[in-house]
Amino acid sequence: MANGGPEIEQLIQLLARLPGLGPRSARRAVLHLIKKKDGLMVPLAAALDRAVAAVRTCEICGNVDTSSPCSICSDPRRIEAGLLVVVEDVADLWALERAGAGAVLYHVLGGVLSPLDGVGPDDLSIDALINRASVAKEVVLAVNATVEGQTTAHYITDRLAGTGVKVTRLAHGVPVGGELDYLDEGTLTQALKARTAI
Amino acid sequence: MANGGPEIEQLIQLLARLPGLGPRSARRAVLHLIKKKDGLMVPLAAALDRAVAAVRTCEICGNVDTSSPCSICSDPRRIEAGLLVVVEDVADLWALERAGAGAVLYHVLGGVLSPLDGVGPDDLSIDALINRASVAKEVVLAVNATVEGQTTAHYITDRLAGTGVKVTRLAHGVPVGGELDYLDEGTLTQALKARTAI
Ligand SMILES: [Zn+2]
Ligand SMILES: [Zn+2]
Repeated sequence: MANGGPEIEQLIQLLARLPGLGPRSARRAVLHLIKKKDGLMVPLAAALDRAVAAVRTCEICGNVDTSSPCSICSDPRRIEAGLLVVVEDVADLWALERAGAGAVLYHVLGGVLSPLDGVGPDDLSIDALINRASVAKEVVLAVNATVEGQTTAHYITDRLAGTGVKVTRLAHGVPVGGELDYLDEGTLTQALKARTAI
Repeated sequence: MANGGPEIEQLIQLLARLPGLGPRSARRAVLHLIKKKDGLMVPLAAALDRAVAAVRTCEICGNVDTSSPCSICSDPRRIEAGLLVVVEDVADLWALERAGAGAVLYHVLGGVLSPLDGVGPDDLSIDALINRASVAKEVVLAVNATVEGQTTAHYITDRLAGTGVKVTRLAHGVPVGGELDYLDEGTLTQALKARTAI
């Protein structure tokens, strides 16, 4: 195997660990990078270095940004609206933002309850959510329509019962078993607008 | 759009330019990188920096390596064997190496003749190939079984006619219209072993 020396081989192996790329597509990606060295490889290396230095996880909501609190949590218009949208992970938050969710705040759980995988309430950002909910006007549970997602939604609804905060979920319109991040933006917007009380 | 600040947005846009990744999968890749910051993002940034500094295009064969001449062109056993395998691009060279092509040298054309796209003989590394062929025992045309690949093979065969060098092509076994880089390694090895005189 003379695939271009250890530096190139290591780059292929790291890229192959990205979702959506395997060993073969990682090799093609590296060859593409080398072919476009000045136009793509050098800028990508610099962008990665900058992102590594800049990336923060928001201490309030769990969003990924270059500041903490993040730009969403720092937005007075969103704080004023008091609508707290609970998502499983940052990809779902970004999907809702792309869909134009409006003046909402988010809370990233960091996963869903999954007893089989040993994921319990303490492994998710649920206590922090309960705290934040006390100053929210409404909590929208925007978890995936999977079994674990719905189990997590029920658990959170139980924890919030009696606090007086209004709890809603996304409208049906999210396909059963579907993942938010793969939905088209129109569906997401509609599902958010037609959210129903739990 | 509050997708994590300009550093993250720029990283997404650059990754989306890799073959096999689109805007959506690039976003997922970046979130994955951020989630595995110490284990993947930091090492990938370092590997890219090292590769940018180390990568060379071999002045003899056109292979990508960290030295020029590359490790293949510097291998006495391969030089001694005198078998010169002509490929369209570096991905095909790597595919043949993975298939265990043996003691062969390569010549990367950098593409194929394509009058419609304005690619003529002067745009490919053909003159250099003719020079190298004069000291080879055999030239194996391992171009893709596409129309342009076969046109290029004919052109090279014509240029080599009368020089006395033996010219062969990969055995049929390469599917018509197929691209070398996508073939399984057994097929590639068989096609090379059963190469036929032109
Ligand atoms: Zn935040
Ligand atoms: Zn070389």
